[in-house]
This record gives sequence, structure tokens and C-alpha cells, in this order.
Amino acid sequence: MWRSRGVVARALGARGRPRGTGTARCSGPAALQDLAVPNGSWSAAMREHYERLLRRTADGSWRRVPSYRNGLDHFPAAAKRGTGTRLFLRSTDTEGAGFEYVTFVHGAGNRALCLCQPGPYLEGHSGFMHGGAIATIIDTTLGTCALEAAGSVMTAKLSIDFLAPVPLGSVVLVDGGVDRRDGRKIFLSCQVRGAAGDTLHAEATALFIQLDAAKSPPAACLTP
Amino acid sequence: MWRSRGVVARALGARGRPRGTGTARCSGPAALQDLAVPNGSWSAAMREHYERLLRRTADGSWRRVPSYRNGLDHFPAAAKRGTGTRLFLRSTDTEGAGFEYVTFVHGAGNRALCLCQPGPYLEGHSGFMHGGAIATIIDTTLGTCALEAAGSVMTAKLSIDFLAPVPLGSVVLVDGGVDRRDGRKIFLSCQVRGAAGDTLHAEATALFIQLDAAKSPPAACLTP
Repeated sequence: MWRSRGVVARALGARGRPRGTGTARCSGPAALQDLAVPNGSWSAAMREHYERLLRRTADGSWRRVPSYRNGLDHFPAAAKRGTGTRLFLRSTDTEGAGFEYVTFVHGAGNRALCLCQPGPYLEGHSGFMHGGAIATIIDTTLGTCALEAAGSVMTAKLSIDFLAPVPLGSVVLVDGGVDRRDGRKIFLSCQVRGAAGDTLHAEATALFIQLDAAKSPPAACLTP
Repeated sequence: MWRSRGVVARALGARGRPRGTGTARCSGPAALQDLAVPNGSWSAAMREHYERLLRRTADGSWRRVPSYRNGLDHFPAAAKRGTGTRLFLRSTDTEGAGFEYVTFVHGAGNRALCLCQPGPYLEGHSGFMHGGAIATIIDTTLGTCALEAAGSVMTAKLSIDFLAPVPLGSVVLVDGGVDRRDGRKIFLSCQVRGAAGDTLHAEATALFIQLDAAKSPPAACLTP
């Protein structure tokens, strides 16, 4: 399975790339765009909680994680690897239609906070976020946290309790962290709450495996 | 949480609507399009396995499940509920870019087979399907199975072991079924294998709750 630190780091895209715009590589001719910043689709609540979390970065204890359309865009060395793919959470072009999200990680590792406003294209039950979309933002948040804590990682197990539906257009906060480590095993957990802390929507546990950077990357993909 | 049989049935969209085209309601002015049929993006392997599964429907023991852009399109009575939303798995317009999938259910309930060709917009690790996308197709397949077995349902727990990466553009088969029932609890499990049966990509267990159709649907959503 995934053995290359580079491959995993590119996919999770949590660090290794300066923020802001720059010369496009994998995303085509347009300037590289960091999507983890406010846009016109963000609700007042999303902006308010974003500003609140952003203030935590002032003393350097927390860091906002940039997010690009393609996971490869996070890493300059990945330029030659462009495949026309897109990071699953950034597959929707229309602002506000899919995942609007921004992740903050604690400078010392071991904790990540992801603010997410699910758009109308993430529907499962009528008017609510699909369970798979909830799983996606959980996997991404815990993956970012594990990457911060241990470098190259992969998800080995993910277990989610769905407790209350997440309304489309609401704002939730995924609060995740590393519970313990056992060799190459990293055990994490998180809660998904309304950003105001009022509703507990889901709880999850996960096991990530720290990868051996010396091993080969997986076989080339069959991207159509 | 979700209590309305109608709400859940619409969201899971597994039955209650004739196949083929018809008058558009929730999807806009275009004719209603069943997307769970071959299109130009399907690989030879996807078509081959689709034809193989389709032959099982000849004697009526299995049934192909139609799939529309919006979950509400499965149910004529849902016309007035259109919200501009989209079923998460059908959020990508470009054929082949997102989830290409078709589900077959056993006429007696208790088993579902979902054939899936993940497109390049579902990327997590470079060249491979995002863990959240895998969780999404699992949740959908088991939800369809639970709906077939018990009517209105909701996911309460989902636990996934990721065993081998799923290459973008490959074809996988999610083979899921009901293991047991305990009152309103429906316990299910599935395996995700390469469609040829060669690779075991993931295993999962899930708990779905049969809903009380007499209860009210959840509060109106805050769709932006």
C-alpha cells in the first residue's frame, strides 16, 4: 500500500507549501488558489468562527492549513505528477456548493480543528449532509492531524457514530486529536459539533499507520 | 433525527419511482435522467461487469436500482420539495469524473451489489480514491440494502477497515448484506473488492435504525 512519504504528504496536503498564490502547476494555467479562505458563499456564522480560530494563530501556537484544488499543488516537487485529478473535497467548482472548509492545526501537533460549511451538493437525507460527506471531512481532519504528528500516514480504520443530522448550510467544527501512539500506529478521535458547540453531530475514532518513507510508492493509477 | 419514511426514502432513493426518463421536477427543466446506466466514460471492465449483473435481473430475482441527480427525483410526491440540492454521489456533472455506479438489489431484500468506477475527482492519495469517497459508496450501498430490507432507515454507525488502495479508474464491487436484525436495529456488513474479485480493498460493518414513519421529519434545512 502507500509507502512513499511524498505520495501521502501530497495527498493529504497539509504542509510543505507556502500559502497564498503562486505559479500554477497541477491545476492548469490559472494561478494557484488557496481555497481555505473566506469567499462569498461563507455565511456570517462561518466567517465569525473562522475569525475566532484565526486569532489563535497570532502567537504561532496554531497554524491555518492552506487547501488547493489538487492535492499535488501543495508540493512544488509534484509538478511532473499532474494527472488531471482533483482532491475529492475540492471537486466542485461552484463556491459554496460542496465542501467549504478550513483546517487549523496546533503547532505542537496532536490536534486539528476543521471548520466546515456543507453546501447543497453534499446531500444525503433531504436537506442534510450525506453520511459519506461527514466521513470525508472526518477522514480529512484526522488525516491532517496524523500527518502533523507523524509525517507520512495512511488511514487503516475509521469508525463513526452518527448522532444528529448536519443541516446543509450550517457550520460544524470537527475537533480531532491524537489519543495515543503505539509504534507506527496512531490512534485518533474527534467530535463533530455545531460550530457554536450546541449540537453533537458525530463522534469518530480512527487508526492511521505511519508509513515507511523508504518503500516504493504504489503502482501508477488508471485514471481515465 | 430523521423520522419520516418519506424523507429517508427520498434521500436514499432506492425505490418508488419508475425507471427511465420522465417529466423533470427537482432537477430543473431537463428530462429526468437515470444515471445508473452505461455512458461513454465507462471502461470495458465496467460494462462487462454491468452486463454480468444485469443478466441476474432476467428472472426477477435481482433488480437494478435507478439513480437520479437529486434524491428527491425518485419520488413523484417530492416535487414540491425541490431545494436545488444534489445527491452527494451525483454532484459532478462531467461523466466519469466522479462516482460512476449502479446498484443491484436482491428481490427478497437483504443483499445489494454496487458496481463503482471512481473518477479522477475522487482523489485522496495520489492516483487513488479518497477514504471518504470509499466511505460514501459503502454508506450508500448498505443504506440501499437496509432500505430494501426495512423501509425507512438511517445510518447510526459505520466502521471501515481500509485494506488496499482503490486506483482511480478501476472497477470495484461493493457486496453488502443484512447480517441480523434486532428490533429496529439492522446490522449489515460489506466487502469492497476489485470487480474481478482479485483484491480486497475494504471491509465494513454498519448499524442502521429503522425509523418510525409516524414521527415528524427533521426541521427544514438551511441550504444556502
